[in-house]
Amino acid sequence: MILSDAKIIEAIKDGRMKIEPENEIHLTPNGIDFCIGDEVAIIKRGGAYKSKRIKLADQIKVEPDTIMLAATREVMTLGNGMVGLVGIRSSYARRGFTCSPTIIDAGYSGRLTLQLRTPPYPVTISKGERVWHIVFFDSYPSSRPYNGRYQGVLNLAEG
Amino acid sequence: MILSDAKIIEAIKDGRMKIEPENEIHLTPNGIDFCIGDEVAIIKRGGAYKSKRIKLADQIKVEPDTIMLAATREVMTLGNGMVGLVGIRSSYARRGFTCSPTIIDAGYSGRLTLQLRTPPYPVTISKGERVWHIVFFDSYPSSRPYNGRYQGVLNLAEG
Amino acid sequence: MILSDAKIIEAIKDGRMKIEPENEIHLTPNGIDFCIGDEVAIIKRGGAYKSKRIKLADQIKVEPDTIMLAATREVMTLGNGMVGLVGIRSSYARRGFTCSPTIIDAGYSGRLTLQLRTPPYPVTISKGERVWHIVFFDSYPSSRPYNGRYQGVLNLAEG
Repeated sequence: MILSDAKIIEAIKDGRMKIEPENEIHLTPNGIDFCIGDEVAIIKRGGAYKSKRIKLADQIKVEPDTIMLAATREVMTLGNGMVGLVGIRSSYARRGFTCSPTIIDAGYSGRLTLQLRTPPYPVTISKGERVWHIVFFDSYPSSRPYNGRYQGVLNLAEG
Repeated sequence: MILSDAKIIEAIKDGRMKIEPENEIHLTPNGIDFCIGDEVAIIKRGGAYKSKRIKLADQIKVEPDTIMLAATREVMTLGNGMVGLVGIRSSYARRGFTCSPTIIDAGYSGRLTLQLRTPPYPVTISKGERVWHIVFFDSYPSSRPYNGRYQGVLNLAEG
Repeated sequence: MILSDAKIIEAIKDGRMKIEPENEIHLTPNGIDFCIGDEVAIIKRGGAYKSKRIKLADQIKVEPDTIMLAATREVMTLGNGMVGLVGIRSSYARRGFTCSPTIIDAGYSGRLTLQLRTPPYPVTISKGERVWHIVFFDSYPSSRPYNGRYQGVLNLAEG
């Protein structure tokens, strides 16, 4: 089952899910919109992997067709028995932004670092922008919930 | 649970889901293939957001690596208690087409506007082409099913 | 429900799911990482669809922003009542790799051919690299489980 808005609130009250800042959760009928926080990394073209980290005071201009990472504003803890699926809000897909399907494992705790590919025209990216939509699925309890390298990380974590 | 072909037919009979044209639904083992309808929008490179709207009489040539939107042929209503996940048919992924993961909220009613990125070679896009594959999940009932800006829209809706 | 590591092992023991090589399954808390096998196809730019097939002895260099297909190392059979969703591992998304959301239908049996778009810088792709993450959902039993053109295919299958 996919959690509804009501079930997400219930899971937060139960402590099975934790999202901060708790008073600014952007609930949708069946999920949560996640926002760009205060740091992004622009992945550079050519050469070896290299990125430009930018602290977002307000907003920045981004070149067409750029792959960037952003630390989400939200910090989350996902209890065992739930899995998140990251997608992009349809309004962003309609403007030509793309993202890849990724999973948030049961047991994960920390700030998310999410990927975004900008459209074929220059865009302005603002702190607090609601870009991604995450749905949460019931899952059978994992015998080894997430405890990997990104556990507890609170700043933008590159690959 | 993901709905099977049989459960989708049951949901349509029950009225919990509605898809038109009803006699041309492309069922798969666990979902429905959605088709390009009669209007597309090619998102232009450079400058600010600008698109070229094209009425599809038959087919058009599209430049390599183009991000486009299409109004689906299908018009759908999704009852409360179900959520759709839009992906791309594996045969299109194998030819180099890409799309982003997006959700159809419980309660949505209207034609879908879906995103597609064409491969690195020129392609022909035809009216009626089956490009996307949508699976439907049971969800807990939402306390506020979708009633946003795209509700009831029947033509291609840009972002 | 999304299958956990324990439920995946149970499904393999039950025979409802089969993955080979069975002693090298990369379980995650709620899914399985799938690896690049010994064949890839680089989709060429320009002209009509054309690809360069490469047998992977060890590793290859790939140009920036390339769409490629790979036969997975794993061969799988998915029983009726289960559906797979292919995504990309978050560590790859963080390095700028992208992929599209695709579904593995109930009843599918064979090697998978999966899509990958490389980042905007040149990369080395190695045989055995764990790139994709697949989660498995319970589904209602399909009345017509998958039996299409890719059924039973063991080598890389282009579109």
